[in-house]
Amino acid sequence: MKKTVRAHTNIALIKYWGKKDPKLRLPLMSSLSMTLDKFYTDTSIEAAEQNSFYLNGKKQDFEASKRVFSYLDMLKTKFEIKDNFTISSVNHVPTSAGLASSSSAFAALASAFCAYYNINVDKKDLSRLARMGSGSASRSIYGGFAIWQKGTDDSSFAYALDEKPNMDLHLLAIELNKNKKSVSSTKGMKLAQTSPFFKPWIQRNDFELQEMVQAIKDADFTKLGSLAELNASEMHAINLSAQPPFTYFEPDTIKAIKLVEDLRKQGIECYYTIDAGPNVKVLCQLRNVKDIKERFESCFNNVTIVDASFGPGVSYLD
Amino acid sequence: MKKTVRAHTNIALIKYWGKKDPKLRLPLMSSLSMTLDKFYTDTSIEAAEQNSFYLNGKKQDFEASKRVFSYLDMLKTKFEIKDNFTISSVNHVPTSAGLASSSSAFAALASAFCAYYNINVDKKDLSRLARMGSGSASRSIYGGFAIWQKGTDDSSFAYALDEKPNMDLHLLAIELNKNKKSVSSTKGMKLAQTSPFFKPWIQRNDFELQEMVQAIKDADFTKLGSLAELNASEMHAINLSAQPPFTYFEPDTIKAIKLVEDLRKQGIECYYTIDAGPNVKVLCQLRNVKDIKERFESCFNNVTIVDASFGPGVSYLD
Repeated sequence: MKKTVRAHTNIALIKYWGKKDPKLRLPLMSSLSMTLDKFYTDTSIEAAEQNSFYLNGKKQDFEASKRVFSYLDMLKTKFEIKDNFTISSVNHVPTSAGLASSSSAFAALASAFCAYYNINVDKKDLSRLARMGSGSASRSIYGGFAIWQKGTDDSSFAYALDEKPNMDLHLLAIELNKNKKSVSSTKGMKLAQTSPFFKPWIQRNDFELQEMVQAIKDADFTKLGSLAELNASEMHAINLSAQPPFTYFEPDTIKAIKLVEDLRKQGIECYYTIDAGPNVKVLCQLRNVKDIKERFESCFNNVTIVDASFGPGVSYLD
Repeated sequence: MKKTVRAHTNIALIKYWGKKDPKLRLPLMSSLSMTLDKFYTDTSIEAAEQNSFYLNGKKQDFEASKRVFSYLDMLKTKFEIKDNFTISSVNHVPTSAGLASSSSAFAALASAFCAYYNINVDKKDLSRLARMGSGSASRSIYGGFAIWQKGTDDSSFAYALDEKPNMDLHLLAIELNKNKKSVSSTKGMKLAQTSPFFKPWIQRNDFELQEMVQAIKDADFTKLGSLAELNASEMHAINLSAQPPFTYFEPDTIKAIKLVEDLRKQGIECYYTIDAGPNVKVLCQLRNVKDIKERFESCFNNVTIVDASFGPGVSYLD
């Protein structure tokens, strides 16, 4: 009897951008995220004679299935299981929206696997398992705000900071560019470490994290937004100063950054955050959602904007 | 009898981006530049009953003349001179090409003043005087490559590294955007110091300078270009990580950066450097000038490209 789990994507307000251990997916910094209601992955698992992986209803070839099954191999070894599987995932995440569908995908897969075998794990264990599939997946086990702490294989998991925040916070995912990013996250994270500013950035991680935690406790949107914008800008400054320099920015990214600045000057408070891609996410409050959407729609052709807010942690569908 | 001096602008390959003393224009770092043949300012000085300043043949109002005459007031006090002046400058620098016309302007003005009064100064003295008008002007006293060393009022002047370099080096000044920059250099330099990466950058200054000096001694274009690109990228990474973040990049700046990367991938070796504005300068060698110009012209509408190489130091025209 198959098991199906839903997990939501999350957006990091304090970014994960560097691996201490690529195999174990241990991060060089702690990160903090907001789980999003509008983007999620439903994944079902069932033992089968042969491994097969369906994504959005389509059977995937060996290459596209590799990451899923090498992750499952790791889980099988860990829990002494011999089965093969039919895995079926449906992604409710706009492709390449700059939102890591791998975060919801591996959170769902880890949870479905454990549910299918009735493995006795708590959320921290689940988070640790999800982490080994994709770092950011560790945070998608929880709703609301989550912190993924750096540490060792044992201690590096995410925990809930506030699963149901009483805070007016929206994230507008602005899809400017549908192209595949030119530098993969894995490669970008490696290159980033050649920046002379990488170490100083890491040294600021505790401070920035604590500031962000305080902003959340105070439900202080201005502080949260400014910190998120600064942290994202630092990450992109790191890339720009790598040896050789590189950037995920596209011309429209700069245009969007300047639009956010303009809106702010006009009293419409909002902040940007940007991940490993050209797309921009705008943090704002409910009363400004409509104005900001309209301004982006009038400045960009064919822009897709999704208005998201807090999403829940993993849920078991059947 | 009036005196006329010509001074050329320079482009910093190791940037000046931070003031230790704004009044004395003492820098927080040493910088290194290439003086350019194609861009220069001719300035003549003559004692007169009243102060007046002509720029490109047009009499300037009080506001536009203020910086010139407050600089001359400083020189007058220093050398115990009581005259007023007619100053006439002709700028052979495309407006807002992102090339600091203040570097050639104040190098020419300082030199013209000293020549007019037969003040016995050597080039280091002249450089120090020019520095007080505009930091980068200290370097425009010399041709070829010049280094402006940080230090005290006495020791912070530029000196020639190689006035007639035997090196194949061209700079294509790509004028993408004619708009006035939104953050002045003075304001940008102040804001930059709020970046957590400013200090680590300053700490690298000696190392980067020595590497660049070595590249020049070895006439190593690849090393010179990579270092210049990295140093400029660091400067813009600093701005991007200031509190709050800001950037001189415009959408076309990113497009130009990506074009430089593309050209390089295609074996057309070139590197970018960018100052406090959206325009991009491309460092290349003679054999690639034509190809690079054509590629930029086909990618951008109405782009103006000037192909520059080494310019001379100040010269006395009459």
